[in-house]
Amino acid sequence: MVSDRPGGAGNTPTTTPVQGVLLGDPEIMTAYIEAFARYAPQVRLALPEAIKEPEAVTFALAWYPDDTAFEAYPNLRLVSSIAAGVNGILDNPSLPASVPLMRIAGEAQGQMMAGFVAWHVLWHHRRFGEYLANQRRRQWERLPKRDAAEVRVGLLGAGKMGGAVAQALLALGYDVAIYSRSGRNLPAGVEGFSGEAGLGDLAARSEILVTLLPLTPQTRGILNAALFARLPEGAALIHVGRGEHLIEADLLAALDSGQLAGASLDVFATEPLPPTHPFWTHEKITVTPHDACDSTPPQVAQEVAAALAGLEAGQLPVSLVDRDAGY
Amino acid sequence: MVSDRPGGAGNTPTTTPVQGVLLGDPEIMTAYIEAFARYAPQVRLALPEAIKEPEAVTFALAWYPDDTAFEAYPNLRLVSSIAAGVNGILDNPSLPASVPLMRIAGEAQGQMMAGFVAWHVLWHHRRFGEYLANQRRRQWERLPKRDAAEVRVGLLGAGKMGGAVAQALLALGYDVAIYSRSGRNLPAGVEGFSGEAGLGDLAARSEILVTLLPLTPQTRGILNAALFARLPEGAALIHVGRGEHLIEADLLAALDSGQLAGASLDVFATEPLPPTHPFWTHEKITVTPHDACDSTPPQVAQEVAAALAGLEAGQLPVSLVDRDAGY
Repeated sequence: MVSDRPGGAGNTPTTTPVQGVLLGDPEIMTAYIEAFARYAPQVRLALPEAIKEPEAVTFALAWYPDDTAFEAYPNLRLVSSIAAGVNGILDNPSLPASVPLMRIAGEAQGQMMAGFVAWHVLWHHRRFGEYLANQRRRQWERLPKRDAAEVRVGLLGAGKMGGAVAQALLALGYDVAIYSRSGRNLPAGVEGFSGEAGLGDLAARSEILVTLLPLTPQTRGILNAALFARLPEGAALIHVGRGEHLIEADLLAALDSGQLAGASLDVFATEPLPPTHPFWTHEKITVTPHDACDSTPPQVAQEVAAALAGLEAGQLPVSLVDRDAGY
Repeated sequence: MVSDRPGGAGNTPTTTPVQGVLLGDPEIMTAYIEAFARYAPQVRLALPEAIKEPEAVTFALAWYPDDTAFEAYPNLRLVSSIAAGVNGILDNPSLPASVPLMRIAGEAQGQMMAGFVAWHVLWHHRRFGEYLANQRRRQWERLPKRDAAEVRVGLLGAGKMGGAVAQALLALGYDVAIYSRSGRNLPAGVEGFSGEAGLGDLAARSEILVTLLPLTPQTRGILNAALFARLPEGAALIHVGRGEHLIEADLLAALDSGQLAGASLDVFATEPLPPTHPFWTHEKITVTPHDACDSTPPQVAQEVAAALAGLEAGQLPVSLVDRDAGY
């Protein structure tokens, strides 16, 4: 947490007052007014209709804003997402080209994601679904077990989330490898893969594949029949990236053929997942409601406060989005 | 794993041949003959009926042996359990008083236990049972989340299992404390409790309580109404110790009153758990078939080989049982 760092922004009492605007669904956005009042009191946040001088607005907190949402604010110095994802902001036609855009990707979110993924890795490895089914039948049946060290987990994505997940899985004893764009900055004890050939090579060694990638033109549809075919037969998928990474029909085909033994899905092309969608009732699929991790309003306020303090001191935000990379 | 240690017994090609006997249910015990032939080839293992010279037997591998099982073997130099538990051997009236008794408690078992407990801690903390129920109803509903750092987990037991579990939970970000007999040898970052008052104090701060204790006269029935009353309201129990630790009626009462919100039970006073037992169908209880971790026959063979090599060099086994302590 930012506020725990000695000398971090949470301990910095005074910063120049900042006028901020909330761009997005008011039902979601108004929760941030109270959190900022407490954790980033130098920022006055308001919905657009309450802004009297748009020229005075230097900060925007955004989540899937309307296409023209940024137009009224010519003097923005910082735009932030309320979460790790920025695909609903980056493609906004009114987003100014030069303003720094940041996302929320602190340690707390990484830890929360790591717990969620660890639970699903154990679910597949230790076959907890079978234990639950056996309990319903009152059936006492021990299951064959393998050491975690023999179970090869492959992560797609080496950012803060990927790093936190890797650390947790290593602590649980798993054999972890990571595919990423650069193939660099990997945790110790992790084998790295990159490039198109690297993606297939990682898949070929991954009994459990975890998607933690950002959504970019390069990653859209990356979870497809060709990739599933490279996995060892009977592999499992844990998908906590973005719904658009997955070709849904390819997943259903791979599950039905037995190429995949199971899938844990937290993100979907259409959210909420429609009640008639086949994923809900597929016996090899667990569905969770895009809930692997949350950035809470206090975390967002603290990360934005730190970024604003940094900007005053001439530093770009730690979680600055690389617009060319798309995350 | 013993064989991974440089210079460990797994790499030591020659040791004096040892005649060993298997004491226990032949259906369980014969699996060890092949494993020892491969991983501890200096040990010849046989069932009692195949032993021609009982005086030549210097090693016994035992699991709930008959009351008179040890009587025929006057020259035992080492007795080993096939698992971490020794309560079925220690109270055997024919067990010689002076022979070293060891249990199997290697890193692989600790890691396996850590994964099992981590899954159940996440199950209670992140409310995965509710997600599974919501999927059955096709209900898209995000659940409130707390950071792992805010969730206080208390472990009863600081042995190899407790240490491995603590390390895994710390890596997942939990606030971990341990109650143990001595209160010593705790992992860094863990608060320690000991003594009768310490037990209540640990309970009072534990939203999730994990039982990893050995079964001794002091720990029998330790999970009772008085202890449950000290837990915060709505706490969860994860019980991976021994069935005799738990007063079953007290658990049911605590669940029904809401003092406990849930329980993960892997061990039972009667195993297999009888089909009519109320635990099977209690909606707040998950039942697993004493399967949190296994010592595989290869692991047992390797740990025994290392202990025998150590004995030749005048060293007592690493996992020597303290008969006064009872584990």
